[in-house]
Amino acid sequence: MRKNYVAVAVGLILLSLNAFAQASKLDAASAVEQVLRRQQEAWNHHDLEGFMSDYWNSAELTFFSGAEKRSGWQSTLERYRKKYQGEGQEMGRLEFSDLNIQELAPDAALVRGAWHLTMSDGKTPHGLFTLIFRKFPEGWKIVHDHTSAADR
Amino acid sequence: MRKNYVAVAVGLILLSLNAFAQASKLDAASAVEQVLRRQQEAWNHHDLEGFMSDYWNSAELTFFSGAEKRSGWQSTLERYRKKYQGEGQEMGRLEFSDLNIQELAPDAALVRGAWHLTMSDGKTPHGLFTLIFRKFPEGWKIVHDHTSAADR
Repeated sequence: MRKNYVAVAVGLILLSLNAFAQASKLDAASAVEQVLRRQQEAWNHHDLEGFMSDYWNSAELTFFSGAEKRSGWQSTLERYRKKYQGEGQEMGRLEFSDLNIQELAPDAALVRGAWHLTMSDGKTPHGLFTLIFRKFPEGWKIVHDHTSAADR
Repeated sequence: MRKNYVAVAVGLILLSLNAFAQASKLDAASAVEQVLRRQQEAWNHHDLEGFMSDYWNSAELTFFSGAEKRSGWQSTLERYRKKYQGEGQEMGRLEFSDLNIQELAPDAALVRGAWHLTMSDGKTPHGLFTLIFRKFPEGWKIVHDHTSAADR
């Protein structure tokens, strides 16, 4: 009889550990999704600094687009400024879609998704992105961004 | 005195665990690098099936390029066939460079790098890639590929 109790107890412990692991995965995915929603909102308020605050503030941040490689937070900010706040440029209205968020480790997540901009002249630049997030004491941050656009 | 022995023993155990973790990281990076070298070689022997054998043979494999999203191993193979083995197409000579391989978990790695093709007519399509590798019982496989090219 006592053996049965032990088996039940072990089973319950395993079940709760599993539930705990699942909950932590959900938490990571929803935390990362929250960051992306906040980024989209910041962009649509033309708040580039807010948008950039979810990128890792490090020289090791990388940003790939076409054949152009940017290294570091500052260089990434400059690219966005030039491309969307330069003369004759605009930020437009940004929408993320088809988000697929996958936890790779308790402190690492992969995001696959699509981006779509609507400009005041009716143009709609769009494409895909791959993001790598790492978890830092201050929260989840993008450490690598690979963005590509439809051929114009 | 006995306490000192215990402290030394614990210290040695921690040191070896650390060495073990470091070695496993090196192993992951060199295993992944080996896969990339093998892929480059297969491509340059015009062995597309060999090249494709390092992609995860699953419907969940994803391949992003420009604004085009491919899902699944078969669809990824078809894209390569169409783009590099179709009429008037060639595979050319492939070179990977600027490889940065980072272990994110014991079974997950991020690869950032550049690709460069040399075609027989002298054209040199080139760009950047981001790969996510996962470790399976049969070895490290690409589960996601985001490739982008210089504007033509």
